[in-house]
Amino acid sequence: MPMLSSLCSLPYTCYKLTSPSSFVKSSQNPDCLNSLFPPASQSVAAIVFGDQSSQSRLYPLTKRRSEAAIPIAGSYRLVDAVLSNCINSNITKIYALTQFNSTSLNSHIARAYSGARLSKDGFVEVIAAYQSPDDNGWFQGTADAIRRCLWVLEEYPVNEFLILPGHHLYRMDYQKLIDAHRRSKAHITVSLFSKAENKDHGFGIFKLNAQNQVLEFRENPNHHFRVNERDDDVFSSMGIYVINRDVMRMLLTEAFPNVNDLKSQVIPGAISLGMKINGYLFDGYWEDMRSIEAYYRANMETIRRENTVYNSFYDRDSPLYTLPRHLPPTLVTDAIITDSIIGDGCILSKCRIKGTVIGMRTRIGDNAVVEDSVIMGSDTYDHNGISDGEAIGIPIGIGECSHIRKAIVDKHARIGKNVMIINKDNVQEGNMEANGYIISGGIVVVIRSAVIPDGSIL
Amino acid sequence: MPMLSSLCSLPYTCYKLTSPSSFVKSSQNPDCLNSLFPPASQSVAAIVFGDQSSQSRLYPLTKRRSEAAIPIAGSYRLVDAVLSNCINSNITKIYALTQFNSTSLNSHIARAYSGARLSKDGFVEVIAAYQSPDDNGWFQGTADAIRRCLWVLEEYPVNEFLILPGHHLYRMDYQKLIDAHRRSKAHITVSLFSKAENKDHGFGIFKLNAQNQVLEFRENPNHHFRVNERDDDVFSSMGIYVINRDVMRMLLTEAFPNVNDLKSQVIPGAISLGMKINGYLFDGYWEDMRSIEAYYRANMETIRRENTVYNSFYDRDSPLYTLPRHLPPTLVTDAIITDSIIGDGCILSKCRIKGTVIGMRTRIGDNAVVEDSVIMGSDTYDHNGISDGEAIGIPIGIGECSHIRKAIVDKHARIGKNVMIINKDNVQEGNMEANGYIISGGIVVVIRSAVIPDGSIL
Amino acid sequence: MPMLSSLCSLPYTCYKLTSPSSFVKSSQNPDCLNSLFPPASQSVAAIVFGDQSSQSRLYPLTKRRSEAAIPIAGSYRLVDAVLSNCINSNITKIYALTQFNSTSLNSHIARAYSGARLSKDGFVEVIAAYQSPDDNGWFQGTADAIRRCLWVLEEYPVNEFLILPGHHLYRMDYQKLIDAHRRSKAHITVSLFSKAENKDHGFGIFKLNAQNQVLEFRENPNHHFRVNERDDDVFSSMGIYVINRDVMRMLLTEAFPNVNDLKSQVIPGAISLGMKINGYLFDGYWEDMRSIEAYYRANMETIRRENTVYNSFYDRDSPLYTLPRHLPPTLVTDAIITDSIIGDGCILSKCRIKGTVIGMRTRIGDNAVVEDSVIMGSDTYDHNGISDGEAIGIPIGIGECSHIRKAIVDKHARIGKNVMIINKDNVQEGNMEANGYIISGGIVVVIRSAVIPDGSIL
Amino acid sequence: MPMLSSLCSLPYTCYKLTSPSSFVKSSQNPDCLNSLFPPASQSVAAIVFGDQSSQSRLYPLTKRRSEAAIPIAGSYRLVDAVLSNCINSNITKIYALTQFNSTSLNSHIARAYSGARLSKDGFVEVIAAYQSPDDNGWFQGTADAIRRCLWVLEEYPVNEFLILPGHHLYRMDYQKLIDAHRRSKAHITVSLFSKAENKDHGFGIFKLNAQNQVLEFRENPNHHFRVNERDDDVFSSMGIYVINRDVMRMLLTEAFPNVNDLKSQVIPGAISLGMKINGYLFDGYWEDMRSIEAYYRANMETIRRENTVYNSFYDRDSPLYTLPRHLPPTLVTDAIITDSIIGDGCILSKCRIKGTVIGMRTRIGDNAVVEDSVIMGSDTYDHNGISDGEAIGIPIGIGECSHIRKAIVDKHARIGKNVMIINKDNVQEGNMEANGYIISGGIVVVIRSAVIPDGSIL
Repeated sequence: MPMLSSLCSLPYTCYKLTSPSSFVKSSQNPDCLNSLFPPASQSVAAIVFGDQSSQSRLYPLTKRRSEAAIPIAGSYRLVDAVLSNCINSNITKIYALTQFNSTSLNSHIARAYSGARLSKDGFVEVIAAYQSPDDNGWFQGTADAIRRCLWVLEEYPVNEFLILPGHHLYRMDYQKLIDAHRRSKAHITVSLFSKAENKDHGFGIFKLNAQNQVLEFRENPNHHFRVNERDDDVFSSMGIYVINRDVMRMLLTEAFPNVNDLKSQVIPGAISLGMKINGYLFDGYWEDMRSIEAYYRANMETIRRENTVYNSFYDRDSPLYTLPRHLPPTLVTDAIITDSIIGDGCILSKCRIKGTVIGMRTRIGDNAVVEDSVIMGSDTYDHNGISDGEAIGIPIGIGECSHIRKAIVDKHARIGKNVMIINKDNVQEGNMEANGYIISGGIVVVIRSAVIPDGSIL
Repeated sequence: MPMLSSLCSLPYTCYKLTSPSSFVKSSQNPDCLNSLFPPASQSVAAIVFGDQSSQSRLYPLTKRRSEAAIPIAGSYRLVDAVLSNCINSNITKIYALTQFNSTSLNSHIARAYSGARLSKDGFVEVIAAYQSPDDNGWFQGTADAIRRCLWVLEEYPVNEFLILPGHHLYRMDYQKLIDAHRRSKAHITVSLFSKAENKDHGFGIFKLNAQNQVLEFRENPNHHFRVNERDDDVFSSMGIYVINRDVMRMLLTEAFPNVNDLKSQVIPGAISLGMKINGYLFDGYWEDMRSIEAYYRANMETIRRENTVYNSFYDRDSPLYTLPRHLPPTLVTDAIITDSIIGDGCILSKCRIKGTVIGMRTRIGDNAVVEDSVIMGSDTYDHNGISDGEAIGIPIGIGECSHIRKAIVDKHARIGKNVMIINKDNVQEGNMEANGYIISGGIVVVIRSAVIPDGSIL
Repeated sequence: MPMLSSLCSLPYTCYKLTSPSSFVKSSQNPDCLNSLFPPASQSVAAIVFGDQSSQSRLYPLTKRRSEAAIPIAGSYRLVDAVLSNCINSNITKIYALTQFNSTSLNSHIARAYSGARLSKDGFVEVIAAYQSPDDNGWFQGTADAIRRCLWVLEEYPVNEFLILPGHHLYRMDYQKLIDAHRRSKAHITVSLFSKAENKDHGFGIFKLNAQNQVLEFRENPNHHFRVNERDDDVFSSMGIYVINRDVMRMLLTEAFPNVNDLKSQVIPGAISLGMKINGYLFDGYWEDMRSIEAYYRANMETIRRENTVYNSFYDRDSPLYTLPRHLPPTLVTDAIITDSIIGDGCILSKCRIKGTVIGMRTRIGDNAVVEDSVIMGSDTYDHNGISDGEAIGIPIGIGECSHIRKAIVDKHARIGKNVMIINKDNVQEGNMEANGYIISGGIVVVIRSAVIPDGSIL
Repeated sequence: MPMLSSLCSLPYTCYKLTSPSSFVKSSQNPDCLNSLFPPASQSVAAIVFGDQSSQSRLYPLTKRRSEAAIPIAGSYRLVDAVLSNCINSNITKIYALTQFNSTSLNSHIARAYSGARLSKDGFVEVIAAYQSPDDNGWFQGTADAIRRCLWVLEEYPVNEFLILPGHHLYRMDYQKLIDAHRRSKAHITVSLFSKAENKDHGFGIFKLNAQNQVLEFRENPNHHFRVNERDDDVFSSMGIYVINRDVMRMLLTEAFPNVNDLKSQVIPGAISLGMKINGYLFDGYWEDMRSIEAYYRANMETIRRENTVYNSFYDRDSPLYTLPRHLPPTLVTDAIITDSIIGDGCILSKCRIKGTVIGMRTRIGDNAVVEDSVIMGSDTYDHNGISDGEAIGIPIGIGECSHIRKAIVDKHARIGKNVMIINKDNVQEGNMEANGYIISGGIVVVIRSAVIPDGSIL
């Protein structure tokens, strides 16, 4: 058995499958498992990661939130996509691990998923990083987080853990993934994105054999992984893993008790031990939200009626869940609206909206024009439009005669009258945080609760 | 003491106050009551009536529902207005009495008000008419209903009952009404509509003295109540009563154990006994929804931004409650929308909407025009637009190139392509129920789940 | 096709299977159904009957409640058994039909099953009898109730209805019943009690062939059904039916649109039409609660640790659900307790309890002795032991030095000091309702909220 | 204005009131505040601290939990006392700040207080320590925690913050505390324990004048605070503070932006600034749970019927809330129980229980004896008494013929047969953690999930 400590010190190593049978110890007979095929609600626990790290590429959207709590598509938060996938796949034991700006995620999950609509013994439990007599540190990585929480995660006698990044947007029936895993009798199954141009989405690249068994893994394939191959057997990882419970425990506590990261250490380690790792190919819509541009693009997709993920919002049997609300209808005085989605409880005056996502409770003033933008809206209505002293006269929303183009306006922003948010100097990247916005990839991002005075031109 | 049996046999009698002090028996000292002024959440129970009678003037909206369960303003049901008034007034012990098409009301209340958002010991409990060993009949009227449920209504030791019709639309702080009642030490306080032209809204007319004490009551004032008076002391009743608990029990079980109706029998009876009845004047917006026209008018008000009731939808501190939902945003392809409200989860293609209430999940096809109408929408999305055999090819919603003007389209209606609902023959009243609609006051009402085939012209 | 009107006029008729293939019209291909086997949560709706009739044999327990709402086993109500069976069988679309004293059932279900712990689209919806424009009457029987509610019951496109009496006590995995039904491709499957001595439990007697197909049905087998048979193929019906949705609609609206009763009219009618009716044998514990004695016996079973139904209370994976409460622990001063169950929040002084079910919040005074009894307890704690004037000095519960033997004490009863409830005259049947109790089968039943003065001897 | 940095470096300093009027800047006019007296549900936010520090004196009860999550009195967790006080005082905006073993507290609060039973806009929101772009560290103390969360805590425009330690046990009507604060127009009001012998409970000692205004504060009064005084004006702090919102913000962000601790830095700092600090005297039962002995003593109090806190468990109007459960009644075969409380769902065989708190789901075997102990019980029932390999044959609970005296048995402990837990060597302090227990103050504490083999004698 190779020492993993050496493995760990080698970044970008290529891990090859040496001997499929060298890992023999398994406390569970896979045959039994497969013949039983218990219902997922009893036998699978999902582990959702609420954030990647404190250096989020989605800043400033993550200034006050974890990535999974970022609003999306007018009415939702990112984590709703993954949690809805779970619920619609009948996986209802869900742990959300988080430590970065965890308050917003905790609050959202506690109110949106507190028992109702889960099955009789289902739950979504947020586990924020914590200090304990044994360990005073933060989670040091995905593997460390799982290891430290194993005593909670093993509360129910599940067969498999399903590991899920919380900030991806896609529709997947995890039941099929679980079934493929059980049928293949693999120790670990990795979900792979079959459509991609084999580019790394941050979770590495896998090479499969004809039976979808993993032959090789590269964490950082920038280094000519594809040079002399035709590559129809090489796929990007989606960061989604099914791991048998006993395998997980063995890997984290016996084989590699000191490693911190799942992707770059545990998975290669499992390969090096000769475990059977399988790939599961997914070819639907998938957005991994790795940048402001990707987030913007994902929102723009919500407008396209052809997009199957967003069409499925309107699907009776597998809806996208979120915090239930009892908002009033949107009040429209005189608006021309094209290719847009409009959240609940908005107040739209005489305005023009094109190619835009309008979040709930958005107020748009007379003669305003909003194009190709993401307006997140607000969590509450203003008290008579005046906040506590700091923005006298500028209510939450978009003021009269303002013009917004290709921008992301975070929640509770107060945009005055005659404001132009058009990236007039065509800046690609810029940090004007003191002025209430940044520019990333040419997209202006107005920061949460920012105040943009009347007449400003950005 | 006059025999009430004689009172009952005299319709339209005018009951005059004979002797303010003739009713002396009171098991509670009003002085105590007033000095205590306990919080309303502990000391008041609301009794909401879900329906008037089986001969509703709102038919066909009441074909499958009680009046209180009729959808209003895109996202709500009528009863939400009264229940929200209660909650916002901190009255959280609420009984809803019903027997006519009670299923929809029961279902709505059970799901929308089941504990959350009420205070720690609050509830909304639906009491449907029931058979018991003592009585096999239906509720014979408002007084009979309360009498038969007294054993439930007295479960908590409240001081007063607040009687509320469930199908009215208004905003009232009942706390002020209760306070006025307690301060005046009246046995009964009646809420009166001060703005009205003294016309009867079905609850009778009261004449007050300068201290707002009731001098006279006429149930049916058509008969020249106002002939020779200037009448600034005469007001329409709103059917809203505050009655001390002991007074209620005495009236229903001792004084008048056989009467059925509150308005026409118990109130006159209390006057005849010399009880102190006070008036409480209300001058806000109030719609009593006594006809299809009134219901249509109430919806049209929701579009006016000046209307204080509807503006208060957008009030942070006293919202209008209803069933919480997690619907997707409304998807708009290319719409010109003026003076309208749009519910959640609609799918609007290239269409024009003017002066219209669009209920949740409404689908409007390309080139459709909707004007001055109430579209109730749907409780679920269609399964691929095809219902069980009966409406092949016509999905729920409004088809392409259809034109709707001054109509009410009930839930789940399937309106085909190139349909004209314009009341082409300018009919005022008509029953075309077999064809899926009726006409009332010139307004076309398309019945719930009706199918209007392609090309129809109504 | 035989006229059912003739069938209906023949009580106690014996319906024989004439031709298995004479019923051919079926809008659903059973083969499809069977090959799909969709999950029960999507494809089955349960219809629970909350009461039998207004002449309940469980009076006075039904004085203020429907049968299904009678408290049982200290912490539960009867309907909890059936609803828990449904939830544990993953059947989560549940309609409860009721009209007799429906308030208590409605209140219990609304608070205990309002969304939490059901699956994502599950519900328990109470449908109380209601008046409508079409029909002003009460439900005339089980078939009439289902027919009038079909428009609600068909809201979701289920495959089968599962008909359940709400007042029986047993544990059944309905999933197995549904599976047997689907595998057999029967139109209707009836659950039969295999253990019984073939006595009629009120739902009739079925005779099966070797394939469990129904050969014969007798509604009232008192009339020598078993005379010259060995009868190992004859079984009592449990009143539990699985009926395909299309079959149900056809039977109620086309074949027999005027019959009122399921058991005595629709089932025989289906047999007469040549439908395939199958039996499903159940051999667990089952109590049908047809008398005060049966109810008493069922409670006594809860004390026996060997009883599998009651042991399953303590089963982690399929608990018995009921209204969740946050009662304090039971406070015991000095008690000798044998073979008893003790609910939550009781206050037990120096007392002796033997063979007794003690319901929640029961208060037992010093030197009291309770034997072989069912004490239901209370829904609230007394306010300083004094109710509104009518029972000065006698708090809810059992007073000092009182002795109770073989009695049922309904909720909120106030039993004074030195009371003997021992059926001293050994009466079998007696109605002393004016004194607060009746005697049935030698068991004294103290009525809900009754007051038994100090020193009484019953 | 004195530099607080110097203050901070002086431990055990005595802060004297220098000039009551030197602090003049106040953005809120106290007169207005007092004349308005808005309802507490709108105008007060409670901040509950879930834990003290990682060096809890309640170890090993805090091995897997924060202090506030420790089970108490059979059915509750410590934090339930404080949260119930809040709800019963109509304070329903509650933030719980935590970082030490926060998972159990988070899970308990999310499930027990998720909306139901709070008022319409009430909530209990857990804020676990988190990393953010601005700050990667843990909370450094109570003041630091509040400062870092101010952006959340100020979400609603409340007037005052109510600071509460989460692990104390007492009944207080905070409404009276708030009223006293408002009437006195103080900047800060501190709740003081009037009964005590002036010993420090860890929150310091205050000296008051006749108007209850604070004259002097000593953090550590060991150093002869009381030497030459009669001391009827000197009181222990309970760690409970009411602080005006603007004062809080000023103190934490302007006056003392770098201090970490409320008690030892912010309060003295406020005194040094000349703010008006008032004392509020509380003379009820109060247990501050500072040691295993104190925790044991608090549990023993629950058995005494005279204790007003525990009697109030059985109070209809102000109950102690906790996670609602639907456990079966406790099943008793043959038990003699004296001066004990028994939780729900226990299974007690032939046993003797004296002076003991028996937590929910406790199983006690035949011939076992439990005296003067705290048995916490279990969160689930065993699967056939066998856990995953590690405790073959020893189910959760107390085995046959075992004898337990003056012990605390944490949840899920597995105590075998013929075990003696009697502290046979009369040890006062001892750490036998490897063997599954420690001894503190002569009390044996069996650790959560520990296994004590058959025949062990401790």
